Amino acid sequence: MSAPGERAVLSDLPLREDLRGRTPYGAPQLDVPYQLNTNENPYPPPAELVDDIAAAVAEVAGTLHRYPDRDAVALRTDLAAYLSGATGTPLTVANLWAANGSNEILQQILQAFGGPGRTALGFEPSYSMHPIIAAGTRTEWAPTPRRADFSLDVAAAVEVLASRQPDVVFVTSPNNPTGQSIPLDDLRALVAAAPGIVVVDEAYAEFSPQESAVRLIDEFPTRVIVSRTMSKAFAFAGGRLGYLAAAPAVVDALLLVRLPYHLSALTQAAARAALRHAAGTLASVHALAAERDRVAQALAGLGYAVVPSDANFILFGHFADPRAAWQSFLDEGVLIRDVGIPGHLRVTVGTPAENDAFLAAAKRDTAWGNGQ
Amino acid sequence: MSAPGERAVLSDLPLREDLRGRTPYGAPQLDVPYQLNTNENPYPPPAELVDDIAAAVAEVAGTLHRYPDRDAVALRTDLAAYLSGATGTPLTVANLWAANGSNEILQQILQAFGGPGRTALGFEPSYSMHPIIAAGTRTEWAPTPRRADFSLDVAAAVEVLASRQPDVVFVTSPNNPTGQSIPLDDLRALVAAAPGIVVVDEAYAEFSPQESAVRLIDEFPTRVIVSRTMSKAFAFAGGRLGYLAAAPAVVDALLLVRLPYHLSALTQAAARAALRHAAGTLASVHALAAERDRVAQALAGLGYAVVPSDANFILFGHFADPRAAWQSFLDEGVLIRDVGIPGHLRVTVGTPAENDAFLAAAKRDTAWGNGQ
Repeated sequence: MSAPGERAVLSDLPLREDLRGRTPYGAPQLDVPYQLNTNENPYPPPAELVDDIAAAVAEVAGTLHRYPDRDAVALRTDLAAYLSGATGTPLTVANLWAANGSNEILQQILQAFGGPGRTALGFEPSYSMHPIIAAGTRTEWAPTPRRADFSLDVAAAVEVLASRQPDVVFVTSPNNPTGQSIPLDDLRALVAAAPGIVVVDEAYAEFSPQESAVRLIDEFPTRVIVSRTMSKAFAFAGGRLGYLAAAPAVVDALLLVRLPYHLSALTQAAARAALRHAAGTLASVHALAAERDRVAQALAGLGYAVVPSDANFILFGHFADPRAAWQSFLDEGVLIRDVGIPGHLRVTVGTPAENDAFLAAAKRDTAWGNGQ
Repeated sequence: MSAPGERAVLSDLPLREDLRGRTPYGAPQLDVPYQLNTNENPYPPPAELVDDIAAAVAEVAGTLHRYPDRDAVALRTDLAAYLSGATGTPLTVANLWAANGSNEILQQILQAFGGPGRTALGFEPSYSMHPIIAAGTRTEWAPTPRRADFSLDVAAAVEVLASRQPDVVFVTSPNNPTGQSIPLDDLRALVAAAPGIVVVDEAYAEFSPQESAVRLIDEFPTRVIVSRTMSKAFAFAGGRLGYLAAAPAVVDALLLVRLPYHLSALTQAAARAALRHAAGTLASVHALAAERDRVAQALAGLGYAVVPSDANFILFGHFADPRAAWQSFLDEGVLIRDVGIPGHLRVTVGTPAENDAFLAAAKRDTAWGNGQ
């Protein structure tokens, strides 16, 4: 059956000029034995969590004819309790905000503090959605390079902030796709130098030994926003729950731009169930960090250049032809990520068996001359 | 406990100028006996649907560590089947797109086809989120008045489209908050006169006897987008599932602006479960339409002016002081909506018992001189 209207093509539509010729974002979703490309947690939710989520959803399902709590107060209270405990910083419901994934969190931040006539600055390479969300909110994007080894030159960054005066700064720690964290004192120096909002994207914070930037909220209440996600450490990528911590005034600002009832009753209930099981879920974080270090050492032993990582992934090289190397991994059933950094590929840390399969493929690729 | 950063207030933040002084959107969420203010379906999901949703969620909960299907293919296929059947128009997965409520659908449409330098036009009074989402995407809003009786003067509208040349036109049918539908031939005339995209917002279409605008997609593939929601007829407001039907090229355009993985695995599974029970759920639509007509007649009998409605709500007047009248309904436990239309209030059609309680309060208000 052909779909109605099928003869019209994209170029026939009155699309915005700046979108013409673009292709949709997204890693391939392929059904292969080893999926190590999107930094998911490889450990499925345990049976008791699955049961708790089902029970929580069953409880709210009977009231789905009603709109959800527009301000997600119970969920934000639980997130505050978790993040207070995880960071040693007292936080309340007034400091927390939640949305459908941290992408929506970042979009709301740019709708409130970015937009036409304003500039957002990021230190690249970093999370590729930052410039995409900037474009989606018509915020000018000011990319600033990291050092050749992907670390952040804080003194240089402070100078750039002083000269560029960006309205919003993104600092990703640990940085995706390179892996390094930024020490709290360096973050403090960046925030002190920033003229406006600093978004510290801590999507991978649970895997890092560094202190969280939430410690800076009280010091810089009008500047610091810490974004987080339950996708990685909480193994909740399919549940789509991003959140942020900031001064209560920042949450007041986001209430002006959030779509009402953006967060479903199902999401709120399931995320609260996942938070009740935080202790068990986060045990996998320690196992993954240990596996990360094992894989990094093994890759180095094979002759690869390995970028130090505090996250659940590793950027490694050098490849004369990363695209061909990516394909040769895929041909062996191992899906990793070509993040567009010359000479490099990124692998997500999986289970020990998945990592062994990856390392076996990496060893063969070295033999083919891809490594070094 | 005071929240960190609490001393900072909204005006201390570098908020966008156009947001300063604004207040968050939203009807009061009050716990009163009769909630007739947000056009929810008053009938809770039956036990078999609750069980099916819980089972569907339990099934996907075991894979929540993985990202959801980014393109929601299975859900869109089910939506196409439902909408084909409901409208008598063949549609496929390529015609359908889904998001977290129709608000997100509309936001994506304006990100693709509106935005800075572009104009969206609506016939007011209408759904109050249209101008808010236009503002959120920095699309210029061109409000155009309806007739004094809230009906749409199609000939005048055609002239306005010719002179204003808006990039996007919103036509709400049935119109919220006034209730009237637009016949298909009138819609065709509007689309033929529009220079760009026409979004027909059919959030309440299941309550109306008029044909759906999906019949126009094949005729105008580069112009017609029909937005829908599962919040009302499907009694799924808490599940947050909005969708649209259009030519496949329109879906291609939205893929360029949607946040990746915007729709959780939970939402996709629960919405598919709700669609499996469509026949049962939609039975309530007929009951609600009958109740709507009964309430409208009774209100008219009490001396109120009643705007004809094809939806699950009724706009009625005249009130010398709508705010005071709203409060007097609330004082009797009946929460209705002051939608800001001079002299009028809007009531959602509830269960027969809820409607009786509303009518009893309406009768007392007439006695106090609010009616007429």
